[in-house]
Amino acid sequence: MAIETRSEQLCFGGVQGFYSHASAATGTEMRFAVFVPPQAKTAPVPALYYLAGLTCTEETFVIKAGAQRLAAELGLMLVTCDTSPRGLNLPGEAENWDFGVGAGFYLDATVAPWSAHYRMGQYVATELPALIEAHFPTDPGRRGIFGHSMGGHGALVTALKHPHRYKSVSAFAPIANPVAVPWGQKAFTNYLGPDRSAWDAYDASVLLRRRALPYAILVDQGEKDQFLDAQLHPQALEEAASVSGQELVLRRQPGYDHSYYFIQTFMEDHLRWHAARLAG
Amino acid sequence: MAIETRSEQLCFGGVQGFYSHASAATGTEMRFAVFVPPQAKTAPVPALYYLAGLTCTEETFVIKAGAQRLAAELGLMLVTCDTSPRGLNLPGEAENWDFGVGAGFYLDATVAPWSAHYRMGQYVATELPALIEAHFPTDPGRRGIFGHSMGGHGALVTALKHPHRYKSVSAFAPIANPVAVPWGQKAFTNYLGPDRSAWDAYDASVLLRRRALPYAILVDQGEKDQFLDAQLHPQALEEAASVSGQELVLRRQPGYDHSYYFIQTFMEDHLRWHAARLAG
Repeated sequence: MAIETRSEQLCFGGVQGFYSHASAATGTEMRFAVFVPPQAKTAPVPALYYLAGLTCTEETFVIKAGAQRLAAELGLMLVTCDTSPRGLNLPGEAENWDFGVGAGFYLDATVAPWSAHYRMGQYVATELPALIEAHFPTDPGRRGIFGHSMGGHGALVTALKHPHRYKSVSAFAPIANPVAVPWGQKAFTNYLGPDRSAWDAYDASVLLRRRALPYAILVDQGEKDQFLDAQLHPQALEEAASVSGQELVLRRQPGYDHSYYFIQTFMEDHLRWHAARLAG
Repeated sequence: MAIETRSEQLCFGGVQGFYSHASAATGTEMRFAVFVPPQAKTAPVPALYYLAGLTCTEETFVIKAGAQRLAAELGLMLVTCDTSPRGLNLPGEAENWDFGVGAGFYLDATVAPWSAHYRMGQYVATELPALIEAHFPTDPGRRGIFGHSMGGHGALVTALKHPHRYKSVSAFAPIANPVAVPWGQKAFTNYLGPDRSAWDAYDASVLLRRRALPYAILVDQGEKDQFLDAQLHPQALEEAASVSGQELVLRRQPGYDHSYYFIQTFMEDHLRWHAARLAG
């Protein structure tokens, strides 16, 4: 589990680093980024994992989210990874912005050729945390997870599939019910095959309807989000939460769209939400 | 003085917009970005102009500096522009990252073919503020200016050439004495010709030695900045300030480099510095 340091730079008294490693889950080199807050000089700190949306990389959140300032104040480690394996040159891999490269959907594909490499589900839930905990000053007992859009879907599904690996979860504008929308249907058909019963394991609203998490969920959703009606469906998450008794704080934010201008506006609320649950 | 709106997005309760217009100074379409804070809904607000460094565009600061949060709190308008004219296809314009496109050095070229278009000095000091004040809720009497690297040079020189057009100035890692370093010598030779006496009008340390500003200067400089010794020379600014009696707060920041990780770390100090001087 060796990692290669690509760069490390001082930021708000902490270190923003970019790294790579040979991933067993994907069979490729994977890149990730870690912000280590200044508090980690004296003791391990909680780690908050961020999953990005379609077309993004491990760099997007680092540059655009404005999260380091408060992470340095709250003593949170921030971990981000890429959104898919890259460099495989599988047929059809790079022809669509919403499938293949940059669009791994945080699942483990079961259909060839994707099944050999597109295993972001396992990567995010197991391999990356083990790697981080081996190389950075954080404890396995204090993990949180959040994300945006496809990454909001990834964060919710990962927490719902592995509730006890995390202590907190939140999302910005998640694809809340992917089996019911074009982005999810396209990805799931290709990665998981046409049998829809296999899709349910990666749908936050389906999973949440069956079982509540042992912690609350925070979701922010812009009301002027250009993908709201066609792709995101937060109301499905709301309905599922009411069925299972899940505590869900779903905030609809008037005037905000799907961009990192929206995300950065509410980043502080999310970081404080996670810090409160990861403390101690 | 018509402007075209390219995009406007809600951010921290204000509006982050991108615009373009036909510039008289450069004879090209120029792009700029404005963050209008929520306070501008009820009354005009001060405007703080940011000049970016080599290879940047009007978008760099907007995405990477993390400034909107505090600007929304302090009621500051943030204005950024491009770093040169673009699209002219002048011979040699795009062969170097430190000259030509993306490297206008905030001066008015006197040597052909640059002299017809590379007039960023006039653009920043005159045309852009007039445009902003015609289209956005801000007063001419409350302008501040700051910048990074080449843009730190631009901010200092613009304030020193036109002290009464501004009420505040600061810089991150400015090219403080361009006549003495390779970046400045290359740009000035090409834009202004080989006669070094013409260069002095665009050198902050030379100008400051002659005359102090009626307000203090704040400069942050990372001590691990990879360009510090070869290109930046903050000590020249310090010496000039002592000659003219300029109040200069020059802070050397251990461990920080030349990047936007450095800039965002000290952005709050700079915005509060300007807000205090632009208030009322």
